[in-house]
Amino acid sequence: MTTTSTDPATDGQGAAALLDRTRTTVDPRLRAAVQSLPGSMRRVAMYHFGWEHADGTPAAGQAGKAIRPALVLAGARALGGEPRLAVRAAAAVELVHNFTLLHDDIIDDDRTRRHRPTAWTVFGMPDALLAGDAMAALALRLLADDPHPASAAAASRVSSCVIELCAGQQADVAFERRPPREVALDEVVAMATAKTGALLGCSCALGALYAGAGEEEVAAMDAFGREAGLAFQLIDDLIGIWGDPERTGKPAGADLVAHKKSLPVVMALGSGTRAGAELAELYERPLAGAELARAVRAVEEAGGRDWAQAQAADRMARAVQQLSRAVPDLAAAGDLLSLAEYVTRRTR
Amino acid sequence: MTTTSTDPATDGQGAAALLDRTRTTVDPRLRAAVQSLPGSMRRVAMYHFGWEHADGTPAAGQAGKAIRPALVLAGARALGGEPRLAVRAAAAVELVHNFTLLHDDIIDDDRTRRHRPTAWTVFGMPDALLAGDAMAALALRLLADDPHPASAAAASRVSSCVIELCAGQQADVAFERRPPREVALDEVVAMATAKTGALLGCSCALGALYAGAGEEEVAAMDAFGREAGLAFQLIDDLIGIWGDPERTGKPAGADLVAHKKSLPVVMALGSGTRAGAELAELYERPLAGAELARAVRAVEEAGGRDWAQAQAADRMARAVQQLSRAVPDLAAAGDLLSLAEYVTRRTR
Repeated sequence: MTTTSTDPATDGQGAAALLDRTRTTVDPRLRAAVQSLPGSMRRVAMYHFGWEHADGTPAAGQAGKAIRPALVLAGARALGGEPRLAVRAAAAVELVHNFTLLHDDIIDDDRTRRHRPTAWTVFGMPDALLAGDAMAALALRLLADDPHPASAAAASRVSSCVIELCAGQQADVAFERRPPREVALDEVVAMATAKTGALLGCSCALGALYAGAGEEEVAAMDAFGREAGLAFQLIDDLIGIWGDPERTGKPAGADLVAHKKSLPVVMALGSGTRAGAELAELYERPLAGAELARAVRAVEEAGGRDWAQAQAADRMARAVQQLSRAVPDLAAAGDLLSLAEYVTRRTR
Repeated sequence: MTTTSTDPATDGQGAAALLDRTRTTVDPRLRAAVQSLPGSMRRVAMYHFGWEHADGTPAAGQAGKAIRPALVLAGARALGGEPRLAVRAAAAVELVHNFTLLHDDIIDDDRTRRHRPTAWTVFGMPDALLAGDAMAALALRLLADDPHPASAAAASRVSSCVIELCAGQQADVAFERRPPREVALDEVVAMATAKTGALLGCSCALGALYAGAGEEEVAAMDAFGREAGLAFQLIDDLIGIWGDPERTGKPAGADLVAHKKSLPVVMALGSGTRAGAELAELYERPLAGAELARAVRAVEEAGGRDWAQAQAADRMARAVQQLSRAVPDLAAAGDLLSLAEYVTRRTR
């Protein structure tokens, strides 16, 4: 948190240091915005961000990794802009991200987030829902009040992104209710693009807008974030089945126990293979022990693992290609590449 | 719907005709915005607005009275602006109003709105919640995309208003959970101001902004809408206990059966009178028949009815006073006065 260097080329500490610097820069603005909320919603938001315990006493917790704000600032820098001018926009995307988490936790009936009880379980559904609404409005007020010439275009993009995030979450909920074999792979790819890629793309595009970039650069930066986001989702889905080779937190097979229709699973189910048919059968009942191990093998035998790994690599290649359209001298895009590698868990 | 006159002075048909004209002007923009939503959320929104049945077939229903859009357009006209330039802003406030209705119905577990099943009972909580989120974002995108010089200031006001609406709804939910005698009158007045007054005030302020008015006029217009909104709430609360003298729809005593902590009730409970104490006792059990009649009389004997009537008149007087600060020649504010009288049910 003490690094003050802003030159990534001489920094060398990579994404972790970059994220630390981002938090140092953006957190004061983010906190000031949250503090401006009326009492009840401020309390929910302060808890959700990890800044307060449920009883309102200060907590030392960290609000999250700040990947989206880091993409805004790094995006601005890569295109020759002044990151300091984009701090409001960086705070806005973090508010949007957290507003969707508050609402998604209600919708998905999730009870744990960042190792703590979710806000709705602590404060009740009404207060958590309303705090989410207020945080979304706060994000857009930050942009409306921003005198930067790019702020209106940024607000328009953020609004469109919110709509896309909602569509992604809606599709996710709908897919979980459909029989496994009735969900097509392209639908799930589109859902993951909306739910995970859209806000990463929007963050990169905002950085470009705040650097005064033209439409083509902004579009390329959006595509960079989206492709990196899909790569992230594919790798996250692989970890959800085979575990994290570099970590011990997530048990292997967790997503299969939950009958999640993740990307490798949907690919396997639609593969037309015997293993795919077996997986469909296994997905009709609770999974544990030998049957869980069998399901893990079935996804692999049906080609789900290889496909997801190849897709993730392909998406990262496309991401870099898009980035090179926006920033022809990739040396200037070192921070963005570090962040893309960080989110796809290649480096940590 | 066929009136095309835009001169209220020669019109003489009052608020109803004005609302018809507003719908004719604003509905195409509102529909186009809603049509731009992704499939699932578009469907929920089309149903909520009464434009489609639950099965997606067209419905002839009307989206609501369009009071808030009418205040935007009438506000712009009263301050010498061109209402046509404020149509996006008018559509935006109607989207905000309806987004809060979608979320409030979920929070309050309400099953009927505008004589139809609420959206969440038809499409499920997740889709209704997400459609509300998307409609709020759509409202702010309309303003972000609006080339009018007032659009950023308008977006900032609308965002702040959304936060205030959330605070009002949060307080409403919290009050309903507290014992009747532990809710203070000034708290309920503040809640009603946030929940009902804020968006009416914001609508009037947007009209002024789009007319290029100065800060003082904008503030006075906001205050006009807020005061009229509180007058509306007081009269609505009176109708909830004594019924509508001009209508037969709402049964007398309905709000008491629901143990609602409406303004006249909270005034009566805090009056320190014997009737107030009796009401508090009656509010501890289900009310019907003779006990319901007794509760209605207790509110009156404790002074709740007289107080609310006097307050409503006082608030309307303050509203007109604020209006005269913004529009010194009140003849130019005929539409706004008609609308204020309409919402307070003086004329219909």
